[in-house]
Amino acid sequence: MIIVPEREIAGLMTRKAAFDAVEKVFAAMSAGDAYNFPVVREAIGHEDALYGFKGGFDQAGLTLGLKAGGYWPNNLEKRNLINHQSTVFLFDPDTGKAKAMVGGNLLTALRTAAASSVSIKHLARKDAKVIGMVGAGHQATFQLRAALEQRDFEKVIGWNLHPEMLPNIEKVAEEAGLPFEAVDLSGMTEADVIISITSSFAPSLMADHVSSGTHIACMGTDTKGKKEVEAALLETATVFTDEVAQSISIGEAQHAIAEGLISQNDVNELGAVINGTHAGRIDEDQITLFDGTGVGLQDLAVAASVVDLAAAKGIAIEVDF
Amino acid sequence: MIIVPEREIAGLMTRKAAFDAVEKVFAAMSAGDAYNFPVVREAIGHEDALYGFKGGFDQAGLTLGLKAGGYWPNNLEKRNLINHQSTVFLFDPDTGKAKAMVGGNLLTALRTAAASSVSIKHLARKDAKVIGMVGAGHQATFQLRAALEQRDFEKVIGWNLHPEMLPNIEKVAEEAGLPFEAVDLSGMTEADVIISITSSFAPSLMADHVSSGTHIACMGTDTKGKKEVEAALLETATVFTDEVAQSISIGEAQHAIAEGLISQNDVNELGAVINGTHAGRIDEDQITLFDGTGVGLQDLAVAASVVDLAAAKGIAIEVDF
Repeated sequence: MIIVPEREIAGLMTRKAAFDAVEKVFAAMSAGDAYNFPVVREAIGHEDALYGFKGGFDQAGLTLGLKAGGYWPNNLEKRNLINHQSTVFLFDPDTGKAKAMVGGNLLTALRTAAASSVSIKHLARKDAKVIGMVGAGHQATFQLRAALEQRDFEKVIGWNLHPEMLPNIEKVAEEAGLPFEAVDLSGMTEADVIISITSSFAPSLMADHVSSGTHIACMGTDTKGKKEVEAALLETATVFTDEVAQSISIGEAQHAIAEGLISQNDVNELGAVINGTHAGRIDEDQITLFDGTGVGLQDLAVAASVVDLAAAKGIAIEVDF
Repeated sequence: MIIVPEREIAGLMTRKAAFDAVEKVFAAMSAGDAYNFPVVREAIGHEDALYGFKGGFDQAGLTLGLKAGGYWPNNLEKRNLINHQSTVFLFDPDTGKAKAMVGGNLLTALRTAAASSVSIKHLARKDAKVIGMVGAGHQATFQLRAALEQRDFEKVIGWNLHPEMLPNIEKVAEEAGLPFEAVDLSGMTEADVIISITSSFAPSLMADHVSSGTHIACMGTDTKGKKEVEAALLETATVFTDEVAQSISIGEAQHAIAEGLISQNDVNELGAVINGTHAGRIDEDQITLFDGTGVGLQDLAVAASVVDLAAAKGIAIEVDF
């Protein structure tokens, strides 16, 4: 039994390793070699917490297990702990024995950033120059760092409901040597790639904020009722997702489906583009939209990767369990 | 983070501690202070394994977490490992942080035996003298040992589809200084308490194998299609269970419900008897039947108990996680 505590993840996991793990598991999902289990998500009636399990099995990578944890909204104020708390448990698919326990907090940020990053690699125009951030919270910094590695971006623009948070992403742009500009949402028409990463229940990004040829990654909607972009955008765009079942029920596509603007058949797997069974972007003027809902297999994939890295560096804690 | 490996459980956990933990959590469930989450159970398509999660939250005992694991049918032959493999993970309900990891194999046997034992305490006649075992596998030995502590039994009788397994339970009877007799199923009419613990899909124990005044604990049916006793028995008996929702869907009551012999309202919570909100047995001739389906909260309760015992004895492994 291998244990990799939360404090070791930052020194072990790289954006490259997270990217490779997530790209591979999206491909395995689309090929039918990996699947997610039904998600358990419960309001437990204590500390206003949401708690649950996201499990899955990747037969190609032989990764079995779950992420357990959730959202404790009082953690930061009451205890100076982060509100999102999760742990990943891996099992040996040959025997059912527990195999590894891995801190899941930073991994969740990295695997979510990797997902939009994989979508940019496969769907954004090769000549994309301007990246627009809708949202500038903690998670937005991970998104932007990962995205900047996918194209030769020349400029970062950003909008946030609370402008005082914009320095979070301005700092990331500066580190990458890129100019940053705060814009109104209408200014997003300048962007070739837009990442939306908010926890909004009302759309920020509207159809007329988006120019033709843009790739949009909607990364904030993972619950019934949440909504980041105008549903009409999904009618205009070619829509991709990590998992179709989640996209149409708890992802951004839930609204366009409910309004009858698109049908389930209009939602495509990003994994199919990776595998070459879907053409992906076919012309320069096309708007592509990735609805990143977040699946358990992503968590298992990055956790398995970090376990390998910890073992290779000799810093995994081994417990005779 | 506290770790209690499988090998330590036998030296730590007592039948008494398991009994107390299970009795308490059944009471909490009935009082509305504890609830089980939806069960995830998947045939993963590898090694013919069934894998899943049983989680729950006990607000009274502040126990939050899950048992993960399942059934690997090739373990014993291929690898000399037991086929049922499980691990219990406990979380701090105040923060969402992982709190303990506990080997779940022996605990599962003990918590299942504790459940029938709790039903005997609260539902069997005080003057019960003969206990009958239907089934004589590994789990039956745990059931019998726990049951013998609940009444002044004077004799053990047993039946098993494969009679060569009967020495398993004969040995337990001998250890307790009690005579053992192998019987036909019709011989079960002699029993005052019957525990059925098989993995059958066709009933063994029929209505005319059971005398009036008997308490029956059906402990083997935890899946759609499994069936240990004739459905007519549930019509005759007063039926109790750990969790009504499971009893009528995957427990023994599924069949009597499907055949229209009883309704959901005829299935009572054992916890209500413990709490005194249901009278339980009200006369000597009544047949009582406990449908033990097995819930995640039982696993969490015994795991929490073993963590306390391990901490008290100073043998818990502490990992800075």
